[in-house]
Amino acid sequence: MKNFVLAPDSFKGTMCAQEVCGIIKAALLRHIPNAHVSSVPMADGGEGMVDAWLAACGGRRVQATVSGPLGAPVQAEYAILPNGAAVLEMAACAGLPLAWPGKDVRERDPMRTTTRGVGELLLHAAQNGAREAVLGLGGSATNEGGIGMAAALGYRFLNASGSEVPPTGAGLLDIVRIEKPQSLPGIAVSAACDGDNPLCGEGGASAVFGPQKGATPAQVAALDAGLANLAALIQRDLGPAVADVPGAGAAGGLGAGVLAFLGGRLRSGIEMLLDAAGFDSLLEDADMVFTGEGRLDGQSAAGKVPVGVARRAKKHGLPCIALCGCFGPGAARLYQHGVTAAFASLRDSAPDFETMRAGAKADMAALADNVARLLAALPSGG
Amino acid sequence: MKNFVLAPDSFKGTMCAQEVCGIIKAALLRHIPNAHVSSVPMADGGEGMVDAWLAACGGRRVQATVSGPLGAPVQAEYAILPNGAAVLEMAACAGLPLAWPGKDVRERDPMRTTTRGVGELLLHAAQNGAREAVLGLGGSATNEGGIGMAAALGYRFLNASGSEVPPTGAGLLDIVRIEKPQSLPGIAVSAACDGDNPLCGEGGASAVFGPQKGATPAQVAALDAGLANLAALIQRDLGPAVADVPGAGAAGGLGAGVLAFLGGRLRSGIEMLLDAAGFDSLLEDADMVFTGEGRLDGQSAAGKVPVGVARRAKKHGLPCIALCGCFGPGAARLYQHGVTAAFASLRDSAPDFETMRAGAKADMAALADNVARLLAALPSGG
Repeated sequence: MKNFVLAPDSFKGTMCAQEVCGIIKAALLRHIPNAHVSSVPMADGGEGMVDAWLAACGGRRVQATVSGPLGAPVQAEYAILPNGAAVLEMAACAGLPLAWPGKDVRERDPMRTTTRGVGELLLHAAQNGAREAVLGLGGSATNEGGIGMAAALGYRFLNASGSEVPPTGAGLLDIVRIEKPQSLPGIAVSAACDGDNPLCGEGGASAVFGPQKGATPAQVAALDAGLANLAALIQRDLGPAVADVPGAGAAGGLGAGVLAFLGGRLRSGIEMLLDAAGFDSLLEDADMVFTGEGRLDGQSAAGKVPVGVARRAKKHGLPCIALCGCFGPGAARLYQHGVTAAFASLRDSAPDFETMRAGAKADMAALADNVARLLAALPSGG
Repeated sequence: MKNFVLAPDSFKGTMCAQEVCGIIKAALLRHIPNAHVSSVPMADGGEGMVDAWLAACGGRRVQATVSGPLGAPVQAEYAILPNGAAVLEMAACAGLPLAWPGKDVRERDPMRTTTRGVGELLLHAAQNGAREAVLGLGGSATNEGGIGMAAALGYRFLNASGSEVPPTGAGLLDIVRIEKPQSLPGIAVSAACDGDNPLCGEGGASAVFGPQKGATPAQVAALDAGLANLAALIQRDLGPAVADVPGAGAAGGLGAGVLAFLGGRLRSGIEMLLDAAGFDSLLEDADMVFTGEGRLDGQSAAGKVPVGVARRAKKHGLPCIALCGCFGPGAARLYQHGVTAAFASLRDSAPDFETMRAGAKADMAALADNVARLLAALPSGG
């Protein structure tokens, strides 16, 4: 028990994945001084994806000024990997915190937000020579089916008078025709998409994610009808039937947009990253894998980091320990995916999030220390 | 890693030690089916001591009707072990819940409580043939230096008029002379005493424990002066100097009373129980020890169960895992006593004690399950 591979997600709001790796590594080396520890900080398609890919693959950061979610320009960052591929997070230019920095959901309004910046970022990456891109779909403030992105690439979404509609949620219902541009940037896009929501209906983008973006019940209905209108026109004017593809509803329908407007693919963010990081070959010499995330629950089974990592560990016959801040409902489902055992770090009931956050690193360090102590004390340990 | 010894304390208010053993044993057998698990539910000198000794040594329960803490009779239970020794808890007849079943500290009044029932229980045990007794000092409602117990055995505590004072905290200051009875029951008493408080002063019985028994600041001063008066008269009329013996202040000064009136000894409750249970010989074939208590903190170092168990494990070179409900300050001090690693079970911040209590067993079962999974997955495990 000497070779460890650490592949946690970030603990949202308290620690980035790199910090979690550092804490676990320090604990292991403290008690098993001859341990060999490989750190592979992880991310699914959400927050921290660019950082995780850069940590796994190397590469450089690129800044670009593009349209923000409400139209005003924002400074966004993406990565160019050594193989020339670009890694982008849609949230870098169309994320919820950019649109409404305050936490008050009543200020939010997904009728007004756009993914135009995503298209501009893709153009920027193409001009930087990228022929492939990985696009993270997590954290969106939008609900417009990717028409903003498409508009930035030359698509035209026309209303009954022949004018272009605003590329926002509000514009969706007015579209009567879609015109495709003569050429598109030659960039193959794989969207990191970890849910399987369809575009419309009860399980669709508007009904499931609209409310957390601030949609009122009336707006949810309007947005859902708008996306249905968009899907029908995509099929009529462009050809593909995207509405029922699992994941089409990700990022307010940007999943459907990636399929329809870019001819792209929807893939699991964690699986793409594990492949890019050469995770399987790292596991060949490993004795144990650690993963984790802030809150470990049954939802984690849906393409999130711990399950992706645990499945690889299981394939290699390795124990996989999940460390988390706290458990949520259904965490026991993770065992079937290869999680050997899971431990939570939060010690005391914190009266509020800030108190919890202040102690989170110390609590995690104490938990990792105890797990390392246990491993070191076993006959197979030190 | 097949032979396990389980020696937890009770989780106060949520699970008895036997239940904790059952939970850990079930988890170990679930994941390491060929494990051999020995359960030795533990107790220090407090709640659960009679049960723990019966579980460790066998024996029988005896009922006796004796004076309660406020004088009214109570039904108390003690144990007679197969070797004839008696095991008694002072709290069985002079404990806080018997005196004031409500939780309101304002109803409590240690001026009025007595240990008379403890003396009656010792007489009962002696009539049952006991020549030795272990007396648990935890959980007392009294602050009278054991004069109630002594009075039951024939001691006379006389005031200036030559009358006997009431054998309570209120009586202490009126004593001017102590008369010893011509004979005492021939029973050698070892008191299970896990603190080292002296009888009087800042660290003494009245100042440290008086307030939780309901003493007002003025009563603390009166009780402290009363115990000092008692100690001076003990030395003058009976001989021994007991006031500064570590542990004399246990159970409202009953520690001093055991020394002065019974010629007894003060010993560590957990050490006596471990010896009686033959714990060292159990450890000879063991691979790992589990201990635990409801709240694991630095205080646990002072003669409480996890430290006593961990020290024995350390002496045998065995890893000792502590499982608890939650951590308190200073828990890291336990490592130096032989605790290898410690894990807390409580998952979610419970809004109140009842909610926490309701989930405590399930949380403990989940923690034990995860530890067992981890052990089973290691090369040395299954």
